[in-house]
Amino acid sequence: MDSQKESVGITVKKNVDFSEWYTQVVLKTALADYAPVKGFIVLRPYGYAIWESIRDILDKRFKETGHQNGFLPVLIPESLLAKEEAHFAGFTPEVFWVTKAGDKELDEKLALRPTSETLAYSIFAKWITSYRNLPLKVNFWNSALRAEIKSTKPLIRTSEFLWQEGHTVHATDEEAEQEVMSILNIYKDFIENYLAVPVITGYKTDSDKFVGAKYTTTLEGLMPVEGKALQMGTSHHLSQNFSKPFGIKYLGKDTKEHFAWQTSWGISWRVIGGVIMVHGDDRGLILPPQVAPIQVVIVPIHKDKNAKMVKEKAREIELELKRAGIRAHMDDRDEYTSGWKFNEWEMKGVPLRINLGPKDIEKGQIEFVRRDAKEKKHAEQEKLVDTTISLLAQVQENLLAKATEFLNENTFTPVDFESFKSIIKVKGGFLLAGWCGQEQCESKIKEETGADIRVIPFNQNDKPATCIYCGRESKKAAIYARAY
Amino acid sequence: MDSQKESVGITVKKNVDFSEWYTQVVLKTALADYAPVKGFIVLRPYGYAIWESIRDILDKRFKETGHQNGFLPVLIPESLLAKEEAHFAGFTPEVFWVTKAGDKELDEKLALRPTSETLAYSIFAKWITSYRNLPLKVNFWNSALRAEIKSTKPLIRTSEFLWQEGHTVHATDEEAEQEVMSILNIYKDFIENYLAVPVITGYKTDSDKFVGAKYTTTLEGLMPVEGKALQMGTSHHLSQNFSKPFGIKYLGKDTKEHFAWQTSWGISWRVIGGVIMVHGDDRGLILPPQVAPIQVVIVPIHKDKNAKMVKEKAREIELELKRAGIRAHMDDRDEYTSGWKFNEWEMKGVPLRINLGPKDIEKGQIEFVRRDAKEKKHAEQEKLVDTTISLLAQVQENLLAKATEFLNENTFTPVDFESFKSIIKVKGGFLLAGWCGQEQCESKIKEETGADIRVIPFNQNDKPATCIYCGRESKKAAIYARAY
Repeated sequence: MDSQKESVGITVKKNVDFSEWYTQVVLKTALADYAPVKGFIVLRPYGYAIWESIRDILDKRFKETGHQNGFLPVLIPESLLAKEEAHFAGFTPEVFWVTKAGDKELDEKLALRPTSETLAYSIFAKWITSYRNLPLKVNFWNSALRAEIKSTKPLIRTSEFLWQEGHTVHATDEEAEQEVMSILNIYKDFIENYLAVPVITGYKTDSDKFVGAKYTTTLEGLMPVEGKALQMGTSHHLSQNFSKPFGIKYLGKDTKEHFAWQTSWGISWRVIGGVIMVHGDDRGLILPPQVAPIQVVIVPIHKDKNAKMVKEKAREIELELKRAGIRAHMDDRDEYTSGWKFNEWEMKGVPLRINLGPKDIEKGQIEFVRRDAKEKKHAEQEKLVDTTISLLAQVQENLLAKATEFLNENTFTPVDFESFKSIIKVKGGFLLAGWCGQEQCESKIKEETGADIRVIPFNQNDKPATCIYCGRESKKAAIYARAY
Repeated sequence: MDSQKESVGITVKKNVDFSEWYTQVVLKTALADYAPVKGFIVLRPYGYAIWESIRDILDKRFKETGHQNGFLPVLIPESLLAKEEAHFAGFTPEVFWVTKAGDKELDEKLALRPTSETLAYSIFAKWITSYRNLPLKVNFWNSALRAEIKSTKPLIRTSEFLWQEGHTVHATDEEAEQEVMSILNIYKDFIENYLAVPVITGYKTDSDKFVGAKYTTTLEGLMPVEGKALQMGTSHHLSQNFSKPFGIKYLGKDTKEHFAWQTSWGISWRVIGGVIMVHGDDRGLILPPQVAPIQVVIVPIHKDKNAKMVKEKAREIELELKRAGIRAHMDDRDEYTSGWKFNEWEMKGVPLRINLGPKDIEKGQIEFVRRDAKEKKHAEQEKLVDTTISLLAQVQENLLAKATEFLNENTFTPVDFESFKSIIKVKGGFLLAGWCGQEQCESKIKEETGADIRVIPFNQNDKPATCIYCGRESKKAAIYARAY
C-alpha cells in the first residue's frame, strides 16, 4: 500500500492535464488499480473504505425509510431480459453473455446483470398477491456489468461497477411518485452534505431516461477544469411498464386485481470519481470529513532520544479522538521521515493533520494543519476533541462552499445559439437555456456542440422565452452541458 | 413477505422427511427463494438480514486483526486462471464462461470467479516490492460462482453463493501459518459462540484440500437426522505455490529478493444452512439470538376497546428494548389475529416473544415465551431489559448445549470396518477411526460406505492403533462421515 514507488507525488497540475492528473490521483493514492481485463478496475483498501462510508450512510437512510436489503444472482436468462422491449433494446449492446458452464454449451445464454429490474420483477411477481404485501421496498448492494465501448475512466466509467439498486412496488401511482422523490431527496442530501458536491435536480428528457421508465429524475454535478457534467445518481418512476409484462398484480381491498406501480433507483461508486474531481488539488485528494476513512492523521515528530515519549503522547491523542468517535490514525512508521509522511497524507486527502513534536508536548498544545486551507491552527491540549470536531466541520463546510461557488460561477445563460456554442467551446459549464420540447433540437445541439440536455431542473423559475436552437416558444428551461 | 400463502406452517416433521422439511423452512419463512436459473437462489430480506449479522460480526473481527476490505471484478481471463496448474484443473469443470460482449465474440474467454486467488495475486504482485508492503491482509465480501452438477440445495449448495474470501501475503512461512490458525480461531469462535454450532477443527487430507494449497484447515459441523457433516469454513496455507507463478516477490531487509508466503480463507452463507438444520424444529426455524434479525417480537393482544392502550404500551416496550441495543419488533398489524402472529414468529424462529395483554399491563408484568424451550416466564415490568438480556443469553447457551450433546452422542469409535459400515448405514454421525495415511484406504471407504475423511482433528489424543480399513498402523485419527 505504501511502497516508495506509489507515494511519489502527483507530477502534473490539475489545471494543465486534468485527465492525467485524475488518473495519477486514483492510482498513486492507492484508491484503485487496473484489473487484467480492459475496462475493469480493482478497488484497493483505501478506496473501498470510502465506499464503505458511503454504503453505511445510505444504508442507514434506506432502512430508516422502510427499505430492506436482499441478494439477487448475477445471471439473468436472455428470455427474461427480453420481456420489456425498450429495456432489452437499450441494454443488449453492452451485455456480457455466459454461453458455457465447464465444457458444456448452455441451452440459453445468460446475461451478467446490467441492472436487475427483469430478474427482480420475475420474482416479485411470486411474492405479491395481496395489498397486504405492499409496499415492497428492497435494495441490493451489488455490482453491475456493462461492456463499455467508449473509453473507460476509473470509477467514472468502468465495465463493472459497485452500486446499489433499489426496487419498490406500490399499490398506487401516487405512492410510487412519492418514493421516487423521497429517494432523490435522500441522494441530494447525501451528495451535498456528505460528499460536499452541489447538484442540480430535475428530470431527464425522454431520449435520456432509463430504458423502460415512465420518467427518470437525476442529480447532476459540475466537474472543474473541463467543465463537464457528472450524473451522480438517478431515481426512476417505472409506472406499470414492468408490472404488466411481469405480471406483478395484487388483490386490492376492493377485492379486484390491479397491476402494481414501481420505482427503481441507484447510485454507484462513480460519486467517488466526482469527489476526486471536485475537491482535489495539485497535491492530490481532498476528502470530505464525512466520508474520509481517516479524518485526522497524527504524525509524531522526534529525534531518537525523545521518540518513545512523543509516540506515547501521539498514541494517547489517537485514543482520545477515537473514543470521541473520530476516525483517527497515528502514523508511527519508523522507516519514513515526517516530511515524507506529510506529503503522503496530503496526497491521500486526509482532511486534518496533527503534527506532534516535543515542544508541543512541553507547551501542552496541539498543532493542526487543515488539508483544504493548508493553514495551521494551535489549540490547548484540553481542547483536543472540541477543536478537532470544529475544524472537521469547517473543512466540510468550506469544501461545499467552494464547490457551490464554482457551480454558480460556471452556470451561464447564453442569449443565443452563437453565444451557446462559444461558451461550450471556451469554458464548458452548465448552460441554462430554453427548449421547445422537440427531440430534434436536442440532438442537433448535441451534434453541433457535444453538449446535450443533462437535466430539466425542477426549479423552472428562470425559464427563457424561446428555444435556444429553433427560436420557437420554450416549453422548459433546460441545463445543457457536455458530460462524462 | 407475509402473504397468507407463505405463512401456512411447515407441513412435514423434521425427523420424517428432513430434506422436504429443510426446503419448506427456507421457503416458507421467506429466507430465500429459487431464482429463474436452475441452481441459483435469491436471498429475501429476512435471510439477507441474517447474512448482514454474520458479515458485521466477522468484519469487525477481521478489521480488529489488521485486515482491510477491497473489491475485485467478477471476471478472470482464462490465461490467468490457468497460471497455477492444480488450481485450474480443479476449478475448470465448474466454471461459467463469458464468451461474448454484446454481439462481439471475445478474443479470450472470461471466467466468472469461482474464487479469486489468481486475479488477486496477479495484482498483489504489482503492489508488493518491499518488506515494507508486508503483511498485506485483504478481504473481499462478494459472491463466487461454480456450476453445480450435483443436485443443489438452497444455501448449502448453489451455483452462486455469498461469502467472504480473505487473501494475505507474508514475509515468512511462520507468519503465514499463524495467520491460517488465527483465522480458523476467529471462525471457530464465531460458529460456536454466535451460531451455536459446535465444530471439529483440523486438517483436510491431501485429496480434499484446496486445489493449489499446501494444506487446508477446516471446521466441520454435524447435522441432525441424516447425520451428515457440513463444512462450515476453511483456511488455507498456500505456501509459495501461488507467489512463484504470479511473481509475488519482495526485497527483504537483507536486500535480497524473496518469494512471499500466502494464505486464503473463506466462509459462506452455507453456515446459515447449518443453523437451520441444527436448531430448527417441527414448527420451523430457531435462530440463535446473536444473529437473529429480530431477537424479541412483541405481540399486543387486545379487543377493539383497549387496542389503543395495549399498542401504546407495546410500542413503549419496543422502544425501551431498542434503546438497550436489543433488536426488538412490535407486530401491530391489524389484519392478522394474535394466534396467527404467534405461529408466524415461531416459524420464523424469533428467539423470544412478549405477549402483551391488558391484564399484563394492569399487573405491571411482562410475559415472555422462549422459542427454544417453549416455556413461559413472567417478570416485573421494571425488569424488562434485564430479563430480556438474561433470557436471550439462556436461549443462546441452550442451543449450543443441545447441539454439543448431539455431536457428542453421535461421535462413534467403531472397533472394526464391519461396525463402521453398520454405524454409517444406520445412524450416520462422526466416526473417529484410525487411518494409515494411504489415499487408497480413504477412497475405498468412500466407495463402500459413502463416507470419507472430513477432518484430521488437531486433537489426536484418542488416536486408534490401526487403520480402520487395512489394519496397518494408524498414522492419524480421522473423522469420517457422509457430507453435504
